[in-house]
Parts: sequence; C-alpha cells; structure tokens
Amino acid sequence: MEKVIPVRMDGTWIYDIVMEQSFDGLKAQLDKLDLKQRKVCVVTDSHVAPLYLEEVKAIAGQCCKKTEEFILPAGEENKNLDTVRNLYEALIKMGFDRKDWLIALGGGVVGDLCGYTAATYLRGISFIQIPTTLLSQVDSSIGGKTGVDFDAYKNMVGAFHMPKLVYSNTAALKTLSPEQFSSGMGEVIKHGLIKDRKYYQWLIQNQEEIKKLDLSLCQEMVHVSNLIKRDVVERDPKENGERALLNFGHTLGHAIEKLADFSLLHGHCVGLGCIGAMAISVNRGIIDRSELDRLKRFLESMGLPVTVTGLNASEIIKTTKRDKKMDSGTIRFILLKSIGEAVIDKTVTEEEMLCGLNEILV
Amino acid sequence: MEKVIPVRMDGTWIYDIVMEQSFDGLKAQLDKLDLKQRKVCVVTDSHVAPLYLEEVKAIAGQCCKKTEEFILPAGEENKNLDTVRNLYEALIKMGFDRKDWLIALGGGVVGDLCGYTAATYLRGISFIQIPTTLLSQVDSSIGGKTGVDFDAYKNMVGAFHMPKLVYSNTAALKTLSPEQFSSGMGEVIKHGLIKDRKYYQWLIQNQEEIKKLDLSLCQEMVHVSNLIKRDVVERDPKENGERALLNFGHTLGHAIEKLADFSLLHGHCVGLGCIGAMAISVNRGIIDRSELDRLKRFLESMGLPVTVTGLNASEIIKTTKRDKKMDSGTIRFILLKSIGEAVIDKTVTEEEMLCGLNEILV
Repeated sequence: MEKVIPVRMDGTWIYDIVMEQSFDGLKAQLDKLDLKQRKVCVVTDSHVAPLYLEEVKAIAGQCCKKTEEFILPAGEENKNLDTVRNLYEALIKMGFDRKDWLIALGGGVVGDLCGYTAATYLRGISFIQIPTTLLSQVDSSIGGKTGVDFDAYKNMVGAFHMPKLVYSNTAALKTLSPEQFSSGMGEVIKHGLIKDRKYYQWLIQNQEEIKKLDLSLCQEMVHVSNLIKRDVVERDPKENGERALLNFGHTLGHAIEKLADFSLLHGHCVGLGCIGAMAISVNRGIIDRSELDRLKRFLESMGLPVTVTGLNASEIIKTTKRDKKMDSGTIRFILLKSIGEAVIDKTVTEEEMLCGLNEILV
Repeated sequence: MEKVIPVRMDGTWIYDIVMEQSFDGLKAQLDKLDLKQRKVCVVTDSHVAPLYLEEVKAIAGQCCKKTEEFILPAGEENKNLDTVRNLYEALIKMGFDRKDWLIALGGGVVGDLCGYTAATYLRGISFIQIPTTLLSQVDSSIGGKTGVDFDAYKNMVGAFHMPKLVYSNTAALKTLSPEQFSSGMGEVIKHGLIKDRKYYQWLIQNQEEIKKLDLSLCQEMVHVSNLIKRDVVERDPKENGERALLNFGHTLGHAIEKLADFSLLHGHCVGLGCIGAMAISVNRGIIDRSELDRLKRFLESMGLPVTVTGLNASEIIKTTKRDKKMDSGTIRFILLKSIGEAVIDKTVTEEEMLCGLNEILV
C-alpha cells in the first residue's frame, strides 16, 4: 500500500514523500512532474547501479525526453568536490540546461552529492530523491539538506535545496548488508528518542520483526520516521531552531566518524553519539541510568556498536569544536530531557563530554 | 548625500543598497547588522587590497568580534572552484561558524566568488557586498546571483544567495582604469536600453560629465541603474521570467567573452552583444537603423569597442548553445521592441544571429 506524506513550507505544498514496496508507483509520480520536454540524469553509485539503475532508467525513460546516467564509485570517501566536478562536467557534455532534472538513486552519499550538484549547477536545477538505504529513506533524503565533505569535515560545503519528490521503495531494504541496515536504525532510534516515546517503545517491542525485515513493518517504520522528520523540517527548514534537535547524537558522532577516518558507518557513529549524549543527561540526573542501559541493549540487539576502540577522548572533544554546529565558539549540544523530548543546550562542559565519552570509549 | 534603496522579496524587506561618496556611512550600516559577537572575513583581490582593505577592516573591526582577510589574485581567470576551495580552507582554519560573516570588497569577480562561498560554506552564511567597480556597483552586486566559472563557462556553478547589505562607495570609481569604467558602462547602457528610454537619453546627454567622473552625476547614474535592477529582481528573483531581460547583450556577449579567452572585459563583451542583438531587431524592422548607429557612436564615445577581430561567427553561435540561458535546446534571446523595452524571444534563428554578428565581427 502506497503511503504519501506531503511536505509544505510556509503553508505551501513543496513535494511529496512516497513510500511503496516496489517501483510500481514511480511512473505515476514522475508523470505528475511533467518531464516530457526534459532530460533526466540518474545519478547512482557502483553498488546500487547493478540493482536498480536499469529499472529506474526504464521508468524515467517513459516520462521524459532523454535519460542519461552517472555512476560514482560507492563510499563516503567519494562524497567530495572532485566527484561534484566530474558530475558538472558530465552534465555540460550532455548539454543539461536549467530545466533538466537529476535523480539521486542510492543512499545518503548519492543523495547528498546529487542534491548539492543540483543546487549549484546553473544556480540550481530540479532533482528527485530515490533513496535505497534505510538511512537515506528515514533521514537524509528528507528536508533539503545537501552537501559534500571537505578536508574530512562532514558536509562542510552544502546548500539547502528541496527535492521535487522523494520516492522510497522499501523493498530495497532487502538488498542492504546487515551493517547498512543497522546504520539506518541509528537514525530511526534517534527519531524516537528526540520526539516520540511511543515510537521508541514500539521499535523496541517490534525489534525482532524489524530485524527479519518484515516489509510492512519496515514501511510503517519509515513512515513514522518520515512524519517525525517532516514535522520538524516544516517548522524550521533552515535550522534556526528546532531542526537542530535532529542533530542528537551527531556532535560526538561526527567527531568519531571523522577521527575513525570514516571506517565506521554514519548511523553507527550516531548511535554511539546518542549513548554519549544520553550519558550526559544521566550524569545530570535528568534521565534514569536504566534508560541508558536499555538504549545500549536495544542498539546492541539491532547490531549497532555500543563501544569504540582506538580513539582518544580529548581528540574527539577537540574535533567537536570544529563541527558545523558551533555558534560563536559555543557548542550547541542536544540533550534529552526525557525519552521522546530533546532540547538544545549550550552549557555542556568538556568534563561532561568526557564523562559521556567514557560510556563508549574502550 | 547618502542614498538608500531597500530590496524586498515577496513584500518583505531583505536588505538595503546604500550609495555614498565615501566609506563614512559604512560603520552605521554595519552597526545595524549587529555583528558584535561575529567574526568577519573581508574577501578582496590583489588590486583592491592596497586601496581599501585597511580602511574597511578598520571600520569592520569597530563593529564585530574579530576581523580577518582573504586576498585572491585579481582577474576573471581566478573566479573558479580552486579559489573557492582556498577560501573554504582559510575559513575552516580561522574557525568560521554558521553565524560568522563574509564581506566582498571588490569588483564582480570578488563579489560573485565571495557570494558563492557564502552560499555554500556550512550550507550558507551571511555576506555583505562592498562593490568598488562601476560594473559591480550597477549590476553584479545586486540581486543575489553568485557563482564561479567552470571549464571556461561563465557562472556555470552558482547559487542564489542574497547579501545582507550592498554598500557602494562611488568615490572608488576614481580608482578605476578607463577600461574598467567603460566596461561598467556596458551594463549601465544596457539598463537604459531594456527598461528606460529617458535614462538612456539622459546618459547620452550627460556623457561628457560622466566621462569626467563627476561624482554626483556618477552617484545619480548608479542610483538609477540600481533602481532599475532592483525593480526587476524584486519581481522575479530566480529568473523565471522578467529577470531574463537583464541578459540583453549577454547571449552573444558571453560567447565572445569565452572565445576571446576572457581577454576582453565583461562589460565590453556585453556592449558588443547589445549591438548584435539590436541589429537583429533592426533586421526585423522593429528598430530603426539610426538607433543602432546612435548606440554604436555612444559606446565608442564612452570607450567601449564596437567591433571585435579574430573570432569566427559560427564558433560564436555554437558557443551560445552551451550557454546557461538555454531552455530545452532553444535559446532564450533578448531583443528590443523599442528603446527602453526588451522582450524574451525564442524564435531567433542562426541566420539572424549571423546577421547580428556581421555588425561587430571584422
């Protein structure tokens, strides 16, 4: 059963998030966008291309004037300006103009990079997100954040650029490695922790079925996570306030990701960051210790790491200070007031971060 | 006497364009922007730095927490992604966060590149335009178009990103070479041709005083050109319609600029493009031949070239097809219906372009 979530900005409809267990609904969605006179380039990576590129190109081919492709090598290490340059060059060679479209087919790397290229090629062209990983379906494809890494700083270069459609085929979750799936679960669990206690409990209750990739349950999970994220980005599209709550687990998480040279998956680092951040709330006496233990058990059960080796706490703290989430030298840390309710906090000290890190560093 | 033009989007005030014959009003403008807790980086080039960098840094230093500088080598050939990368690196090293600001101090190259960096660093930070050339004061600093060249294609990579203030010190016009001044006149004359017959006539009547750089007359000229451009970009900020009229002279002009390897100044190429485009209207019997001759005399008198050597007409036409102003393979050409009134025309044939080019190629 197709599910559709409309996304509005200032009350005006901007695009739909469509969830389906196949690509059967894609043609009807593309037809609505009136691409008959337009060229479309499907941007994907070397992992996803063998799985879905031909199917998506065939569908797009029925809806637009010409379908092109651009395949980038898979991996976060390719989410950089060099790959963007290669894509610009390909688009120039293929004669893409302001009215032509990009389709991002893949995970977060493809979506972020393709979206950033769409944001900046000819001062902005239209693009569509077809996320194929859990992480991109529940998080990175929603809300118009695009960007690439720069000098190992995550998403240091980027732009806000809304897609015209997000189409999630949840059957694609079946093709993910267990690591990729659990990485996405890092963001899913974060959604529950920051916004929806009931959803968090539902996730814990249904963890066995989720692990078995029960598709209707997974679709429901993607749906609820998208509703949570949609509500936040509608209220604060440019991250002037509430949207920062989505960065729960990301301050420490990004630093760990960077210092581990991107050898750890993003969602795994977010999971570690969630433990660290929750530990700060525990140390402040706001959250009960048993909740932290429960989170750790849940993450572990879902296949996420709950400890990390070989990293130095003071290095991590130093790295957080170089993060985007700075404001005049102060770190905007996200803490939990309770399960399902997050707050921005600018008073977290280095000592508190150290205590939080003690929870995960071994 | 300070003149101020407010710029609105959808009825909401966004920023002011301030014109003054010195930097005496700059501090009061910066104070309004409340930079006390912010770092500011003044981005300028090797030509402008010796003239104004210390003065502007000293003023900014009174209004913000810390003032930094970044000097790029002067010249259009440096308006590229490599320079943007260098600026990103400098900003990271200086610990610039989302709330810190850039100031573009210089001509169009500095403004476009600094604006693009501001648009994309950390998904967008605030910036101020302090244009010091006639071209940037009357045209490129207004309206939020930012970008850099890519593979010799002008502004192929870019973003719409509004400045928070445009401050034009018209006394800076005294420091320009005659070539730089006449290059700016290309855009000024274009403004009259596309939107305001009376302004065009006023320019012709006052050409001797303008050439003598009578500052109050120059300030009046910058003011009227800014009013014309402001009105257009307010009505159509993202160039979905009317804003395209500002591209009069630019389709052929950009192609000439590119094929001459940027050895000709932008405004000079625009002037040549205006002649070529007006010749098409003359050939269609819409504009009287005497108007074309009058334009040529005026351009020549102001020191702009009215012919160009060493370029091939079919190469120019081929190059126009790679321009940004394409729409599904059709060139959106801007023609004049009368002096002071431009229209978008998608029916211009290669033969007509050839006739237009015959007017300027020798």
